[in-house]
Amino acid sequence: MSDTSGRRVAGVVASVPDAASVPAAGAHDACLHLDPATRADASRRLKSVRGHVEGVLRMLEDPDVYCVDVLKQVSAVQGALRKVSDNVLKAHIRDHVVTAAQRGDAEVIVDELMEALKYKA
Amino acid sequence: MSDTSGRRVAGVVASVPDAASVPAAGAHDACLHLDPATRADASRRLKSVRGHVEGVLRMLEDPDVYCVDVLKQVSAVQGALRKVSDNVLKAHIRDHVVTAAQRGDAEVIVDELMEALKYKA
Amino acid sequence: MSDTSGRRVAGVVASVPDAASVPAAGAHDACLHLDPATRADASRRLKSVRGHVEGVLRMLEDPDVYCVDVLKQVSAVQGALRKVSDNVLKAHIRDHVVTAAQRGDAEVIVDELMEALKYKA
Amino acid sequence: MSDTSGRRVAGVVASVPDAASVPAAGAHDACLHLDPATRADASRRLKSVRGHVEGVLRMLEDPDVYCVDVLKQVSAVQGALRKVSDNVLKAHIRDHVVTAAQRGDAEVIVDELMEALKYKA
Repeated sequence: MSDTSGRRVAGVVASVPDAASVPAAGAHDACLHLDPATRADASRRLKSVRGHVEGVLRMLEDPDVYCVDVLKQVSAVQGALRKVSDNVLKAHIRDHVVTAAQRGDAEVIVDELMEALKYKA
Repeated sequence: MSDTSGRRVAGVVASVPDAASVPAAGAHDACLHLDPATRADASRRLKSVRGHVEGVLRMLEDPDVYCVDVLKQVSAVQGALRKVSDNVLKAHIRDHVVTAAQRGDAEVIVDELMEALKYKA
Repeated sequence: MSDTSGRRVAGVVASVPDAASVPAAGAHDACLHLDPATRADASRRLKSVRGHVEGVLRMLEDPDVYCVDVLKQVSAVQGALRKVSDNVLKAHIRDHVVTAAQRGDAEVIVDELMEALKYKA
Repeated sequence: MSDTSGRRVAGVVASVPDAASVPAAGAHDACLHLDPATRADASRRLKSVRGHVEGVLRMLEDPDVYCVDVLKQVSAVQGALRKVSDNVLKAHIRDHVVTAAQRGDAEVIVDELMEALKYKA
């Protein structure tokens, strides 16, 4: 959980409170962070995912549970997680990848994105 | 969560003359359920998944969280769910699919399995 | 291309010309082969895949070709191959997996199928 | 094969040799094309894919071909195509996505990339 990329630029410009959505002069000094709306949306979806996982856990208490019913529910949870991923990915591309040449960290951003896409479900 | 296949044999069907060839005595009477060991393993893994999801939720409370760190964690959760799926799938194939011709429900089992595999992440 | 599983039973019973679809007594001695209709369908689809690949090769001769257009075409080819895979997989499950307990090679069939599914795109 | 994005701008501005570092007016007029090295690499790989497909076609002429052997070969072809995709995707992100804010076509580039990633195998 403590996995941090270490790529977030340390020297945060104090006067750029929301640099991600305001890629103006000095934006390349900004801390790259997930925008608040996408962050809230991801939280909402992950709470639903947690509830869904709890539902599957209850299903599994039934000794008569049928394999395929479990498979369907796990697939549904994976679909919900994929939606989280896709939204975060889109926010990242929109807010940080398209501006990478301006900031001057294109190479790092590209390698990092390709790595993240490798595991795309 | 209430998704049930309706295919699970509720009671003991005494007269299934359609068994493909030589159904072992009583084999077609069996209720198809996830075997206890795989069920316990799936529960254990899903509890870990729930904990992981809660970790990502805590991550998302940080306004400075970096998109790619979220993507990595969601990928890890998806990997854990895939392991659950793979184990349940293997149990299903081993316990129910390879015996379908004996039981006489091969057609339903095949369609159901292909449907489940369609969504395989 | 010469990849063979070695699992095909060597001692083919000459008097069982289509053992895959006739899992009767002695069927576990039968050679497991892809049924003719699915085989013909796969050939037809793969010829179309080959033509599609040739189309992408021609696209790539254009120095002005746009990356995303190439990505779309490669995706389309992958979709076509997935259809081939799904059809062959379904034929395998229908003709060989559901009858494995009868033939007595369930363990090998299950491991082999799980291995094949691991790479399912 | 005639799928074109319509987004490629025909009128190439000759005086923009390095748009990435000089996001001057008119930079968004640049023709976005797949770089020659990646294009040559993709061609080489696709010729190998075509040969592999022909090998599977020959396999399918054998009435005794085993389903799982076909599945393995189709998987191998899909893996080779995925490598083509990944290389073209990386070139696109490196050459066109990270510079989108400079060119001023970020919105189109993001939507297009998300669409392409949706079908990522």
